[in-house]
Amino acid sequence: MLGIEEIGVHIPEGRISNYDRKEQFGIDDHFIEQKIGVRQVSVKDDNEDTSDLCVKAFADLCRKTDIDLSDIEAMVVVTQNPDRNIPHTSAMLHGKLGLPARCACFDISLGCSGFVYSLSVFQGFMAANGMKKGLLFTADPYSKIIDPNDKNTTLLFGDGAAVTLISENPKLVSGQFTFGTLGSEHEKLICNDGLLFMNGRAVFNFAAKVVPDDIRLVVEKNGLTLEGIDRFLLHQGSKIIVETIADRLKIPREKAPYTTYDYGNTISSTLPILLVDELNGTADTIVICGFGVGLSWASGVLKRV
Amino acid sequence: MLGIEEIGVHIPEGRISNYDRKEQFGIDDHFIEQKIGVRQVSVKDDNEDTSDLCVKAFADLCRKTDIDLSDIEAMVVVTQNPDRNIPHTSAMLHGKLGLPARCACFDISLGCSGFVYSLSVFQGFMAANGMKKGLLFTADPYSKIIDPNDKNTTLLFGDGAAVTLISENPKLVSGQFTFGTLGSEHEKLICNDGLLFMNGRAVFNFAAKVVPDDIRLVVEKNGLTLEGIDRFLLHQGSKIIVETIADRLKIPREKAPYTTYDYGNTISSTLPILLVDELNGTADTIVICGFGVGLSWASGVLKRV
Repeated sequence: MLGIEEIGVHIPEGRISNYDRKEQFGIDDHFIEQKIGVRQVSVKDDNEDTSDLCVKAFADLCRKTDIDLSDIEAMVVVTQNPDRNIPHTSAMLHGKLGLPARCACFDISLGCSGFVYSLSVFQGFMAANGMKKGLLFTADPYSKIIDPNDKNTTLLFGDGAAVTLISENPKLVSGQFTFGTLGSEHEKLICNDGLLFMNGRAVFNFAAKVVPDDIRLVVEKNGLTLEGIDRFLLHQGSKIIVETIADRLKIPREKAPYTTYDYGNTISSTLPILLVDELNGTADTIVICGFGVGLSWASGVLKRV
Repeated sequence: MLGIEEIGVHIPEGRISNYDRKEQFGIDDHFIEQKIGVRQVSVKDDNEDTSDLCVKAFADLCRKTDIDLSDIEAMVVVTQNPDRNIPHTSAMLHGKLGLPARCACFDISLGCSGFVYSLSVFQGFMAANGMKKGLLFTADPYSKIIDPNDKNTTLLFGDGAAVTLISENPKLVSGQFTFGTLGSEHEKLICNDGLLFMNGRAVFNFAAKVVPDDIRLVVEKNGLTLEGIDRFLLHQGSKIIVETIADRLKIPREKAPYTTYDYGNTISSTLPILLVDELNGTADTIVICGFGVGLSWASGVLKRV
């Protein structure tokens, strides 16, 4: 059965400190540490593109496990900040990594719900085509579209990439998923003329309302109870949204970790970054949930093999 | 079993005649009619966006079959010319069509291989999640990125959109697929600074070499022979590439129709547009093959239920 064997991660070394911007934005330490939970955001080099971040995440994967490129039968890149619109970033990455001509490549355009959606899409595609080894990249460098004077976005989003190795030798396998879209609300989080706009309050209210219900639904759909879940990995939108969702579910906050103090919200990469710590951990049953741009959300359950 | 139940199509009424551009580009009637096989290209209105073309294709689908929006469990938009990068076009289309909140939506970024790839991806996703009815949109209006003075592109590409209804009440079901990518060749067909560039000769040579081999492979993978295939639906890149592929396969040209004289190469929509004529036709076994941007290709076999 296909599932997650290993995960490679790359977070660029560049940082912008939020403490240095307290005066500019009229914020204090409490806001930085307790509300958004982002002390500094990671920023890629100007001359690095999305596929370059993927190459570095792949190098991390290769440090963790042996990869024979000729075994890779499929590859997907999840991004809304591609190198360019044509061709797809996965084609450019295919060339950079030197993957075989018989490797199926495509991009998926999704934001913060992208990892959960794509895990289901990619595993479904691989299974339907009898493929045994594939690479799921997430890389959405928002530094390309952030207005450094926009308090609602520049303090939150960091650059990062991850690659999830899907194989028949998994550590974690997925159960049932749930998905949703509120397209009529898409203007709450949108890119206009190359710059990101976010109605922070509206997106917070959406997540605080939709996500707890969706997690209850996915747990039930998998024949489980909230009490039986060892870990809730929630998209790291901000510290306050993660805590709010945990509180509304009446689960201990320790079961829903918030960890991205030192690089920020890396969009579709927040969940695979969190999963690195779980791959060799003790949690047997893990809920994953992504939510954001679209507005879109998805949840799933992972079980240890 | 999931498969293709119905197809809606929209080709904008606007046209640019290639006969009117003979002097500008130093071309003659033979070039127009026999080589590229495009007398005029379709062009959308300036104020129409990609999702608008999808809405019109959906209206055509609704004229052909009854659609209850509440039945739609998933929707994908295949495009490399989205309304905007954030959010995905499928989210905006979700809002415009008034689809239910529980409808899973995502975009796939692929060019001329997009329909074949996405048919496999989307059916795999739906099957893995027990979904029974979904919409696969293709819409890639190249008029957004065409330089009207570039002979290699402006004479060939037309705007269009299609929506393929995937359901458990299909007329055609798919067998095995084949996929491929030559990412190291991606610069042969690329968008630079918002304008499309195509090395026409290189892309022609790629297709003339790779596609016949891939079609032989997919036929064999499905336990069939070339003689047993009733119809070969090839991406309508140009008249000359369709004829060249047919000749190299030593199949009668009538089995590999070229039909897009009056609107041009509509990227990922050429195959669903061709399939409209086959849905209620007599061909029992149909090969479909898309190839282009990436460089990327995919083939599949469809069988009448």
